[in-house]
Amino acid sequence: MKKKIKLSLVGAGPGDPDLITLKAIKVLQKADVILYDALVNEALLDYAPQAVKMFVGKRLGCHACTQEQINQLIIESAFKYGHVVRLKGGDPFIFGRAKEEIDYATAFNIPVEVVQGVSSPLAVPASQMIPLTCRGISESFWVITGTKHTGELSTDLLLAAQSSATVVILMAMSKLSQIMDIFNNYGKANTPVAIIQNGTTKEEKYVLGYVHDIVQKSRQAGMSNPAVIVVGEVVSLHPDLMSSLYLVENNRYHGHKAP
Amino acid sequence: MKKKIKLSLVGAGPGDPDLITLKAIKVLQKADVILYDALVNEALLDYAPQAVKMFVGKRLGCHACTQEQINQLIIESAFKYGHVVRLKGGDPFIFGRAKEEIDYATAFNIPVEVVQGVSSPLAVPASQMIPLTCRGISESFWVITGTKHTGELSTDLLLAAQSSATVVILMAMSKLSQIMDIFNNYGKANTPVAIIQNGTTKEEKYVLGYVHDIVQKSRQAGMSNPAVIVVGEVVSLHPDLMSSLYLVENNRYHGHKAP
Repeated sequence: MKKKIKLSLVGAGPGDPDLITLKAIKVLQKADVILYDALVNEALLDYAPQAVKMFVGKRLGCHACTQEQINQLIIESAFKYGHVVRLKGGDPFIFGRAKEEIDYATAFNIPVEVVQGVSSPLAVPASQMIPLTCRGISESFWVITGTKHTGELSTDLLLAAQSSATVVILMAMSKLSQIMDIFNNYGKANTPVAIIQNGTTKEEKYVLGYVHDIVQKSRQAGMSNPAVIVVGEVVSLHPDLMSSLYLVENNRYHGHKAP
Repeated sequence: MKKKIKLSLVGAGPGDPDLITLKAIKVLQKADVILYDALVNEALLDYAPQAVKMFVGKRLGCHACTQEQINQLIIESAFKYGHVVRLKGGDPFIFGRAKEEIDYATAFNIPVEVVQGVSSPLAVPASQMIPLTCRGISESFWVITGTKHTGELSTDLLLAAQSSATVVILMAMSKLSQIMDIFNNYGKANTPVAIIQNGTTKEEKYVLGYVHDIVQKSRQAGMSNPAVIVVGEVVSLHPDLMSSLYLVENNRYHGHKAP
């Protein structure tokens, strides 16, 4: 029987293995080979006992595949095994380098499908009960990578700091101080900030503060990547920051009496 | 046995019933009552044969519950049935009015959990193979509602039109012309635009164009809500807009030869 050659780019979700989609599970169950990243929860590989598994991510002290090597591995695996699943943390189309892999596969006439995932910049704040939008507080959110592929700080950060959007910054812990300086320069010293590390996993930890003190607090708490940084008034909705007074007021607004 | 009172805010995903998370399915299986919105795929209710189901959404020509009525229904249902699942289209924390419901439940000492979902502004463009970020093309994305709760156009749109972010606009079809005028005023007449209606469902349809002609094209195609509008250079990655020349060039960039 001729192997059915195909590439599926599949979102593994933010970390909690139950935050994978049913569609992703069904694709994993049919995979011939799985190439997975460092941010993927390895428990998900159990859905595919039949598949060859290859780790292609970056880990401290280990050899990491370059994107070019991954592209080539996709092609080789497709022709050798058939159906390749590229399992990526979060959603494959959000900072996932999906285009490089799609272009490569397409050039070799390998059909490509995308299976969306729960995206970390949205799901990780939610696991701390921080909504990125909230009626009357924030009507939009802006998701930015801290560092461009050139290594420079993203220029979008200058505009984001002036906006009223909730700003979510990924892969930015090494530039936290520089980024907070930008917000500070735009008069946002007292805007609340949350940093959440290993969000939605058992190792989840967080620190809350403001633009003017989050760098120190983050250092004291020993925060590091993988982390999601949220800057915006919605951070004040975090349970630690909600005073009981606020809840009483809110109840009164609705003209309702708790039992 | 005393009923276990609880509120779960659960994301139903963007429309495709397989784009629900495993975690959401597990919660549905334990629900005593489900209050669901118009954008929820009703096939998902089959996971909860044991639960009472109540439709609380808005539909053309039908009575729609107000948010205040929904809040009260949550409390009544919790005390009457026990575990209430509030099933919302997409992710409950993205334009989901989650805070009102959480505050209300908290005021009545009802514990609340949030189960993240696949969010439509990210997943719907992906179903048309449009990534919101792409190395070298867009390093950020900004998700905005077209209309504020006051009915005005969101002022964030003025900043978004000046940024290099991919801009995703929800609930905005009635203001499409006004919104494209804003982008046009910032010199973006030739920025590509995609409008995708009923994304990830069998009824999915889309139209592609540019800031200067999308209003006319959208009218010709009879596009309407629920739709996701994407403005940005990443739209040029849509398969309809990718010329074969582009693919050849791309292959050449990688110094590789297709078999």
